[in-house]
Amino acid sequence: MAITIRKIAKDLQLAVSTVSKALNDSHEISAATRKRVLEYAAKLDYLPNPYASSLKRRKTGNIAVVLPEVADSFFSIAVNGIEAVAQEKGYHVIIYLTHEDAAKERAILHDFRSGRVDGVLMSVSHNTNNDDHIHELLSRNIPLVFFDRVCSAVETAKVTTDDLEAGYQATEHLISKGCREILFLAVAGNNNIIQQRQEGYQRALAHHGLSIKKNNILLCTQEETENHTLIKQALTRSKRPDGIIGSVEKLGISAYTVCHELELHIPRDVKVIAFSNLEIAALLNPSLSTMTQPAFEMGKAAASLLFKALQKKKPLPPGSDIVIPSVLHIRQSTT
Amino acid sequence: MAITIRKIAKDLQLAVSTVSKALNDSHEISAATRKRVLEYAAKLDYLPNPYASSLKRRKTGNIAVVLPEVADSFFSIAVNGIEAVAQEKGYHVIIYLTHEDAAKERAILHDFRSGRVDGVLMSVSHNTNNDDHIHELLSRNIPLVFFDRVCSAVETAKVTTDDLEAGYQATEHLISKGCREILFLAVAGNNNIIQQRQEGYQRALAHHGLSIKKNNILLCTQEETENHTLIKQALTRSKRPDGIIGSVEKLGISAYTVCHELELHIPRDVKVIAFSNLEIAALLNPSLSTMTQPAFEMGKAAASLLFKALQKKKPLPPGSDIVIPSVLHIRQSTT
Repeated sequence: MAITIRKIAKDLQLAVSTVSKALNDSHEISAATRKRVLEYAAKLDYLPNPYASSLKRRKTGNIAVVLPEVADSFFSIAVNGIEAVAQEKGYHVIIYLTHEDAAKERAILHDFRSGRVDGVLMSVSHNTNNDDHIHELLSRNIPLVFFDRVCSAVETAKVTTDDLEAGYQATEHLISKGCREILFLAVAGNNNIIQQRQEGYQRALAHHGLSIKKNNILLCTQEETENHTLIKQALTRSKRPDGIIGSVEKLGISAYTVCHELELHIPRDVKVIAFSNLEIAALLNPSLSTMTQPAFEMGKAAASLLFKALQKKKPLPPGSDIVIPSVLHIRQSTT
Repeated sequence: MAITIRKIAKDLQLAVSTVSKALNDSHEISAATRKRVLEYAAKLDYLPNPYASSLKRRKTGNIAVVLPEVADSFFSIAVNGIEAVAQEKGYHVIIYLTHEDAAKERAILHDFRSGRVDGVLMSVSHNTNNDDHIHELLSRNIPLVFFDRVCSAVETAKVTTDDLEAGYQATEHLISKGCREILFLAVAGNNNIIQQRQEGYQRALAHHGLSIKKNNILLCTQEETENHTLIKQALTRSKRPDGIIGSVEKLGISAYTVCHELELHIPRDVKVIAFSNLEIAALLNPSLSTMTQPAFEMGKAAASLLFKALQKKKPLPPGSDIVIPSVLHIRQSTT
């Protein structure tokens, strides 16, 4: 790439910096020169602006987004928020999926050491309980911003939502609707988000004088059929739960599926609320109450922080963390 | 990387090829030697197998998946099919989103020229009507396999479903349920998939002696609100349509939203079917009949073809195209 810019500069008898600025639409360059450079660059099949550029701070023009999955609507919407910012900056967004596999996550980050990307946005996998790979990346001056699922021990910018408060609110909402035996569908593994939501659930129960029962907290897995069995067992107990909180979207869906199977009426027999960004929650049978994370805004905020770090060429100062509140949407499933 | 393998070989007094094979778990190498190499490689912080390797045919260990979006369930499921194969081969899957922007698609493919990825799986954006960028990539011996949305003029392997037949079947299903005024929600732009589905719709109408009316084919866009307005206008006509086909998932959802708004009863007033891979179609109000593409299988098949091309280091022979049929799921929305 550098050679091409030098070639353009030489052929047009301009300074390399002039060509670089012209290719970046800098206002320091006259319109005529800019036109001349762009036309010649196009002739040489130089990558079109804004996707190519050789700004000093930009090496690859790529930022990586490391995610557990894209099937969850939170992540697919967050990616759109990230893209909105990256597009403006002329960067490509590259998505890597860990599928909740800590070894894979490590391998992906390892791969970035060779300078494949300029910066990283990441939501850690459930099973990550060692953060050496993250520290290593940061030590190589590749900035990383966490969003949603963070490693709290790593000192870098984090964009999260108020999961504890959201867990509390979701639980209190069910209590206010008369639920006394509330099932919390948790996710097994080392996931700070779920732990926070569960903590909120427990605090709300305690605050309203309800006891916290171990068998009301189900540790679900990545295996859908196992989760169905677990939920079915809980819903066929002699003392049947009257409320369910799905701590992630797919567990809310599983709860619906099991209720349909057992012919339990939502909300009469069981009320259900899920942490979800599903746009079609309102079209479900019945419409699903959700605790909705600000997915798009979180993606945007995380990307903005990353570009700030890239621009300054140094890590973000402590205190750049951002917390954006989740929003309760009450629908038929909890009325 | 090559230096590291050479270093390991030198330090352990082994041949470079032996180290390479040991790192790839080759059965030609004794367990003791393999163990020695792997332990030493780990000590040197060499990338763990299978994520790193320097097989001759593999340059980057990455394959790219170029997609319009991930919010559509077809794509998120297809990615899982691709990952299933790539994981087995020890490759990273990197996802690039075009957001239906042909210029962005071109820029992304342009970026691959530098050897960023070993091969490409791609579903073209709605607005791609020039395939120079694809020819250019192929001319550089970077194999590319199309899946779902293809450029038919480009000679490379393609994995598709039988869209014409699926469009025909969906339409015939509505006709068999008594629909006579069937709305086809199409997508504006140059999309061969939608064109095929529409062709199937038209053939089914003709075959059953129904006339093809221009105002029953709505050209929807990427703007959700515009689509809502279009659908609402059609459903408030004096001669109201009695059936709707959403040619993509989100248009099926839009149809539901508008019917709910207009208080039209599905299926009594209007029957609805959508091309969709939504797992929760069965939980919608009412449960949604779908024409379901074999997303996971298509992703797997496309990835398998790509690895075949990578292994042989040459383009796939003509006739490697794969067509996997879609499946009609009849639910309440068309009963």
